Amino acid sequence: MILVLNKNLPEAEIAGVVSEIERLGFSAQVVLNQPNPLVFVSGDVKVVPSHLFSNIAGVEKVMKLGPACPRVDNSEGRPVVVGNIKIGYGAKPVVIAGPCSVENEEMLLQTAHAVKVAGAVMLRGGAFKPRTSPYDFRGLGKQALEYLAQARRQTGLPVVSEVMSVEQLEIALDYVDVLQIGARNMYNYELLSAVGKTQLPVLLKRGMSATINDLLQAAEYIMLAGNSQVILCERGIRTFETYTRNTLDLSAVAALKTLTNLPVIVDPSHGTGRKDLIRSMSRAAIAAGADGLIIEVHPQPMRAMSDAAQAITPVELEKIVMDTRKIYELFSEEATFSSAPALSLASTVS
Amino acid sequence: MILVLNKNLPEAEIAGVVSEIERLGFSAQVVLNQPNPLVFVSGDVKVVPSHLFSNIAGVEKVMKLGPACPRVDNSEGRPVVVGNIKIGYGAKPVVIAGPCSVENEEMLLQTAHAVKVAGAVMLRGGAFKPRTSPYDFRGLGKQALEYLAQARRQTGLPVVSEVMSVEQLEIALDYVDVLQIGARNMYNYELLSAVGKTQLPVLLKRGMSATINDLLQAAEYIMLAGNSQVILCERGIRTFETYTRNTLDLSAVAALKTLTNLPVIVDPSHGTGRKDLIRSMSRAAIAAGADGLIIEVHPQPMRAMSDAAQAITPVELEKIVMDTRKIYELFSEEATFSSAPALSLASTVS
Amino acid sequence: MILVLNKNLPEAEIAGVVSEIERLGFSAQVVLNQPNPLVFVSGDVKVVPSHLFSNIAGVEKVMKLGPACPRVDNSEGRPVVVGNIKIGYGAKPVVIAGPCSVENEEMLLQTAHAVKVAGAVMLRGGAFKPRTSPYDFRGLGKQALEYLAQARRQTGLPVVSEVMSVEQLEIALDYVDVLQIGARNMYNYELLSAVGKTQLPVLLKRGMSATINDLLQAAEYIMLAGNSQVILCERGIRTFETYTRNTLDLSAVAALKTLTNLPVIVDPSHGTGRKDLIRSMSRAAIAAGADGLIIEVHPQPMRAMSDAAQAITPVELEKIVMDTRKIYELFSEEATFSSAPALSLASTVS
Amino acid sequence: MILVLNKNLPEAEIAGVVSEIERLGFSAQVVLNQPNPLVFVSGDVKVVPSHLFSNIAGVEKVMKLGPACPRVDNSEGRPVVVGNIKIGYGAKPVVIAGPCSVENEEMLLQTAHAVKVAGAVMLRGGAFKPRTSPYDFRGLGKQALEYLAQARRQTGLPVVSEVMSVEQLEIALDYVDVLQIGARNMYNYELLSAVGKTQLPVLLKRGMSATINDLLQAAEYIMLAGNSQVILCERGIRTFETYTRNTLDLSAVAALKTLTNLPVIVDPSHGTGRKDLIRSMSRAAIAAGADGLIIEVHPQPMRAMSDAAQAITPVELEKIVMDTRKIYELFSEEATFSSAPALSLASTVS
Repeated sequence: MILVLNKNLPEAEIAGVVSEIERLGFSAQVVLNQPNPLVFVSGDVKVVPSHLFSNIAGVEKVMKLGPACPRVDNSEGRPVVVGNIKIGYGAKPVVIAGPCSVENEEMLLQTAHAVKVAGAVMLRGGAFKPRTSPYDFRGLGKQALEYLAQARRQTGLPVVSEVMSVEQLEIALDYVDVLQIGARNMYNYELLSAVGKTQLPVLLKRGMSATINDLLQAAEYIMLAGNSQVILCERGIRTFETYTRNTLDLSAVAALKTLTNLPVIVDPSHGTGRKDLIRSMSRAAIAAGADGLIIEVHPQPMRAMSDAAQAITPVELEKIVMDTRKIYELFSEEATFSSAPALSLASTVS
Repeated sequence: MILVLNKNLPEAEIAGVVSEIERLGFSAQVVLNQPNPLVFVSGDVKVVPSHLFSNIAGVEKVMKLGPACPRVDNSEGRPVVVGNIKIGYGAKPVVIAGPCSVENEEMLLQTAHAVKVAGAVMLRGGAFKPRTSPYDFRGLGKQALEYLAQARRQTGLPVVSEVMSVEQLEIALDYVDVLQIGARNMYNYELLSAVGKTQLPVLLKRGMSATINDLLQAAEYIMLAGNSQVILCERGIRTFETYTRNTLDLSAVAALKTLTNLPVIVDPSHGTGRKDLIRSMSRAAIAAGADGLIIEVHPQPMRAMSDAAQAITPVELEKIVMDTRKIYELFSEEATFSSAPALSLASTVS
Repeated sequence: MILVLNKNLPEAEIAGVVSEIERLGFSAQVVLNQPNPLVFVSGDVKVVPSHLFSNIAGVEKVMKLGPACPRVDNSEGRPVVVGNIKIGYGAKPVVIAGPCSVENEEMLLQTAHAVKVAGAVMLRGGAFKPRTSPYDFRGLGKQALEYLAQARRQTGLPVVSEVMSVEQLEIALDYVDVLQIGARNMYNYELLSAVGKTQLPVLLKRGMSATINDLLQAAEYIMLAGNSQVILCERGIRTFETYTRNTLDLSAVAALKTLTNLPVIVDPSHGTGRKDLIRSMSRAAIAAGADGLIIEVHPQPMRAMSDAAQAITPVELEKIVMDTRKIYELFSEEATFSSAPALSLASTVS
Repeated sequence: MILVLNKNLPEAEIAGVVSEIERLGFSAQVVLNQPNPLVFVSGDVKVVPSHLFSNIAGVEKVMKLGPACPRVDNSEGRPVVVGNIKIGYGAKPVVIAGPCSVENEEMLLQTAHAVKVAGAVMLRGGAFKPRTSPYDFRGLGKQALEYLAQARRQTGLPVVSEVMSVEQLEIALDYVDVLQIGARNMYNYELLSAVGKTQLPVLLKRGMSATINDLLQAAEYIMLAGNSQVILCERGIRTFETYTRNTLDLSAVAALKTLTNLPVIVDPSHGTGRKDLIRSMSRAAIAAGADGLIIEVHPQPMRAMSDAAQAITPVELEKIVMDTRKIYELFSEEATFSSAPALSLASTVS
């Protein structure tokens, strides 16, 4: 950690800063820079809040060094495994598909069979639905989970579904193969810790205004609680652009692949909110290095009870699966992504 | 609801759109606009998802009319009451103050007495702290709530504290006077419904990327669950500007005052993240029409265990309380804000 | 155009709205919707500012219909031609490359030869450089243009360079093959009109906070002035994310391809600001449907006088050119993009 | 400048970094931090691009120290003077008002007299109008300037009007008292330098996605060209919020007042885009410390040819002028803002 001191701080006051640092249990080295002297602090500075440093009289600014997410940074170089499916770290990209909401038994089973035929390897389906308006359809809950389990029995496809509370998590544990944390709950640290205590892989979506660093920190919460099976998911961020529902940030995918060994998938359905852009963005996501896609599919999109504007048909899904394979094959001979993620450095202004 | 049909849609297909609408149980009136014919749909369109309309073959776009948050729109014109304190609807602005985190008994009691002397009418203090990094201080939990209750006994100040899960809510109910929902949980609909089932007033903070409409919808969740004692809080939104921690959106305060009767307060501490801007922004918030302020105060800001960069001293708080009174007195003779909030209209692109 | 009237507006006042519309020279049809009556206005509403409608007493809101950019919407389905190079509308993706700034004769010639060998078909190079700080290197001006012309003579590569004022434009006309309008000048309507009066193709970069609609309107300025040779360029938008210099919005590329026949290229150098992400984003851009790339290349990136963090070497460029060809070949048998761009509809709140 | 070296860089390579720095003409001091060694560089590092440092082999990151805008940082502590009006540095807040566009002689003269009666001290009026769509009204040009000059003769109010090009600037010099640079041209460095060569005060609006730092750098362009009479203007930034036209960033006002001695005014008309919010935001702006307001006024707002949704009447203006005086009087006894702006420090990631 480097402390930038006030302009032309007198030597006596610099000495005061040094003693304060030592009082906190760290050692200090002064650099007599002009006009702002600097102090370099060594020792395990993470054990105290950085504000203890930034608020020492005479300190203008604190610059931190060192990784903020040790577990994420040091995640092992191996794929997340769901049944016999591997996700990330050199594995072939996976396509996860299914309806936004599980609307009823028949539509779910029909969709599950259709997405399997189209090439999807995992089934998604909302049982508990977060909706901006309380008057929108909020999902069938436990009943939906039962339908999902039935779809798995019939198709063999593992199931991913979202949980929004510890209560829902406890119910879902009996039914799903992958727990999804939605964008609205990425900062729900209680929930992150709770899924971190389970043995199930977690699909963690980026919050709608979360930085790449925030997303990694959220993954750190899960890993710190004991669960290292985390799949990151880019699903669009909120910007001034209104043509698309969100702005799909594919640079984040490429960046995450350099920062961590965790698999990174993309949700082009929420990322764009427009069915006419999903195929293009699926291609782009795989080309950017994504380890998979999660896509909303409905047998009759115009009848969907939620997110109909972004649902595609199984026929369109099949084209995307094909595209995915073709693009992957182009580049599959390249070395897998490095297991040595770059050092993450962050500086904060006090 | 108005449906904009495809350019030059043949009459036969327009008739198809009409029958589809009727099949859904609504009535339709056609306007033969050039080049896009229009259909006006009447009936209670909220009972079905709007996508059922937007996905009818031949429909280009759906434009919605009508209020999205009936309970918020029709909230009664009266203040929220906490003990003998009134918040909003013409009441004098309140100042809520206290430490970011309850760090220990002594500092809390000291702060509580100090903010009371400075003119605050309610005590804030974090027992359960949401932190981006799992390695930061996460609060003392139940122990902190006990200190808060003790501070209330000694000072008479009602207590507001954040809950992040149903489990924490159940504990907090025995200690606090106002439940706070933080920015990171504004979209946590399970939690919103849970606090909506209690009898306690709820201080609802705007999410860091929530629109004004999203905030009103979150309030609707609470009110729909039965609790109409909701206090809205602007605390800054996430933008490209990095000089401040967030961008404090005071226009949202003025806008919310025209859209609802609910009280609206401002958090300049998180809104700016910089102690040098808090007094200015407090003045500006009250001048913009805010019904109160919630401010982080620490007896020794440089020793704060969290958010130290934005904590002010009790002495500075007192100046802000004075400013608040002066600005309020300037304008207090104006009529209270109208009890007839403007009709909220929204249009969506399908 | 549809006018939404005030809730329960009395019939007499509705009649007043109608006469006002007729006074403005348009015809009106009333729909007695509850609670907000509607009025449909026909005639060429573009001839008067829409606020004349929105401000008629009794009008709550105006919803516009119809294309906002007639020339862009109706742009012909054919590529932009630069020498013997075709850009867009089914042509093979082009790679434009060169240094951020033309630093001196030797480095430019060296770079020009190197990018040609690597497969680039056009040379970029900054003669006049927009810089946030006035103390940064602002380019060699006319001297740089002479070097660029010399590089063209030696390599045969057409040249693209930015102009920031009418004065610079007049100089550049003698030297360059494509005029570039940079992101900072996308809203510089005087300059847009000026390049619109030339015969040279224009490479128009999206402003850092421009919506897709704003970009199309900027293209409309150029086309309205008489020049239909416009190449759109996505180069990243400004968001809260700070890991990348900008947030590259590849959905905008896919969207623009559905909205217009104009070619759309991508600048991954400015879009990410990080050399480690440029190859991934180049792949993703082509996969998203981009008609080309514009990339900053420097023979010794660490010696670059501007934007060094995002410059790549000719060797890296060659890999990108290869990637581009491979991805294009995967999908080249698909039909070229439709020449019938979707109707653009916009609604505004008064 | 501090260079953070690669983790565990061997001493021999550290020595290589040092010689490279010395080769560039600077001196270096090494701090053997673990795991990342540091090098402190002294000398006038501004004379070479920082990328020359960041690209030295073994350098992980560059952290810059020192002010980026020396002229702005050291601007003298005195108001900008326009005729007998003083703006900023302790002067009473000014209200500048007038129509968005000068529509014709009669309306302008009528408005000018009305805003004078209401208490405005300067007249604004658009002669050259930047419009997103080329089909919107673009102003009367030189004719409008003549009307403005006539209005000045009749009322004595100095005149402020926008210029968008050097050509317009040359015309405007004969007519206006203050040159306005609009938000769309804040990055138009040619124009900034051109107005910097005149003797007229410049009203510089913040770009719609400009950071506080970008705005200060734009002011530096003007001051570097020789003109120190710069008035900064906050007019709202572009964010995800769509309820308001822009998000008015009043924290930027307070921040700018700590960072520079230049006057800072606020444009609540463009900042909100909604006439129902202008009075509240005017109050808030003055309470935040603004040195003045610039407001769009129209004698009959519903007839305005541009920006009608945000125009207010002279009667409403008078109330705002009164509010402004009252709030100013509350705080006018405080010391004027410090003439010693805080040191601006910035760090960049290479």
